[in-house]
Amino acid sequence: MQTFTSVIKMQEWCKEQKREGKTIGLVPTMGYLHQGHLALVREARRACDIVVVSIFVNPIQFGVGEDFEDYPRDLDKDSLLLEQGQVDAVFAPSIKEMYPLGYNSFVEVLGEISQKLCAQSRPIHFRGVTTVVSKLFHICLPDQAFFGQKDAQQVMIIEKMVRELNFPLSIVRVPIVREEDGLALSSRNVYLDAEQRKQALVLNRSLQAARELIQSGERNVAKVKSLLEQTIKTSPGAIIGYAEIYDASDLTEVEEIKGQVLIALAVKFGTTRLIDNLLVEV
Amino acid sequence: MQTFTSVIKMQEWCKEQKREGKTIGLVPTMGYLHQGHLALVREARRACDIVVVSIFVNPIQFGVGEDFEDYPRDLDKDSLLLEQGQVDAVFAPSIKEMYPLGYNSFVEVLGEISQKLCAQSRPIHFRGVTTVVSKLFHICLPDQAFFGQKDAQQVMIIEKMVRELNFPLSIVRVPIVREEDGLALSSRNVYLDAEQRKQALVLNRSLQAARELIQSGERNVAKVKSLLEQTIKTSPGAIIGYAEIYDASDLTEVEEIKGQVLIALAVKFGTTRLIDNLLVEV
Repeated sequence: MQTFTSVIKMQEWCKEQKREGKTIGLVPTMGYLHQGHLALVREARRACDIVVVSIFVNPIQFGVGEDFEDYPRDLDKDSLLLEQGQVDAVFAPSIKEMYPLGYNSFVEVLGEISQKLCAQSRPIHFRGVTTVVSKLFHICLPDQAFFGQKDAQQVMIIEKMVRELNFPLSIVRVPIVREEDGLALSSRNVYLDAEQRKQALVLNRSLQAARELIQSGERNVAKVKSLLEQTIKTSPGAIIGYAEIYDASDLTEVEEIKGQVLIALAVKFGTTRLIDNLLVEV
Repeated sequence: MQTFTSVIKMQEWCKEQKREGKTIGLVPTMGYLHQGHLALVREARRACDIVVVSIFVNPIQFGVGEDFEDYPRDLDKDSLLLEQGQVDAVFAPSIKEMYPLGYNSFVEVLGEISQKLCAQSRPIHFRGVTTVVSKLFHICLPDQAFFGQKDAQQVMIIEKMVRELNFPLSIVRVPIVREEDGLALSSRNVYLDAEQRKQALVLNRSLQAARELIQSGERNVAKVKSLLEQTIKTSPGAIIGYAEIYDASDLTEVEEIKGQVLIALAVKFGTTRLIDNLLVEV
């Protein structure tokens, strides 16, 4: 496994792989890898000749007062995990390498899809994501790029960006990986103390309750949302950021459950904000 | 020469050329081709295995009240010229093909470079340009893309975008092509009546006067700008949009001529707005 920190060297290496006729799978991450990331790596390994994993805590997707400085990092451990996962190359650039002095180019997906859910409390977040992902696509030249369904809104926005800006690649969504007790894996789970960790189970529990209600025949979105909120509130420390049900294709409002809907949650436990979601099809 | 109107088919064809190890040169145009465009084609022909020319009058770079509807078009004549220029493929998509319903993805270069000169009167122009050029890069997969120095600010912004977003290609600037009497070639010259056509020569004449003043030793920007404006005003129909001298690397203000400067003009004759420029190095 090779590790690159230089944009030019990473790009040259990827160009060389392409010249040799190999397909490239890219797994963009912010590091501090867990089994969710490794599921992405396995999918990429299965689908492509070459697997590149990027590790970059992207400053421009963090707002003022967010956890950019505190975001957990462990490049040595990450490298070991990726080596075991038979990754071919790791791209771990510095901030200066990605955003040199005077940097001022941005890629943006506007509209409803970028204004709801996480965008409400993180207004600059998705512009930072689409910009860094565009850069990574140009540097690593993937045929396929792998993203977790855990960040449901992110993957929807990236799919729209790829389609609309005609990036020559396809996006693969990989399902959420959960702990045995149902907590969705996240690098941010490390922030939780034992009590918060227990309370955080309410995320998955409320999603499952909502799904059961829908499966029992309920189609009224307001009623399902009400159950969702009630269930979250059974956890005394939970502060709801959002608990929403939207059309899963474009995040438009729905009054009635039909087709595929996205049930999406953001809940704070102490200072730690966790997100989770579930796709339900009727 | 093949002509493509479908994004997917154009992209597939370009991918196939790359798989065969060929290099691609792209010449993005809005059509109504003149010798300026054909100079770009010749450069691309010299440098690359495959030459692709795109012809697309890009609606999102025109503001309200600008000449999008009136912009001259002649695809048959353009195709003939490109065939004679030994172009391999023409990409001439419809607006709907490039911007399907609900389109909302944009690429933007912010900062000083995007706020001066043409941006003053055309605030959305460069966002439209960088967006369509990004799309064309993703569709046509060029190793090199060719732009005219005539649109000096445009090529500077595109170079910054390519560098900062790490597009895997290089930009080639091609010098302005002029009529024998000095008028810079432009598809918009067709709007001029005989009298305006004569008056428009003041653009090149004022640039040359400014250059001669600099070459005679003048280094004070205000004095050179003053001569520039005086010269333009000798033409009774000329309405100055701007007549500026900036650092040629980033369009920052300069008080004294040193290194390379860009002398840039936008002048209206009747309803026709023409631009011209000159790079001067001391």
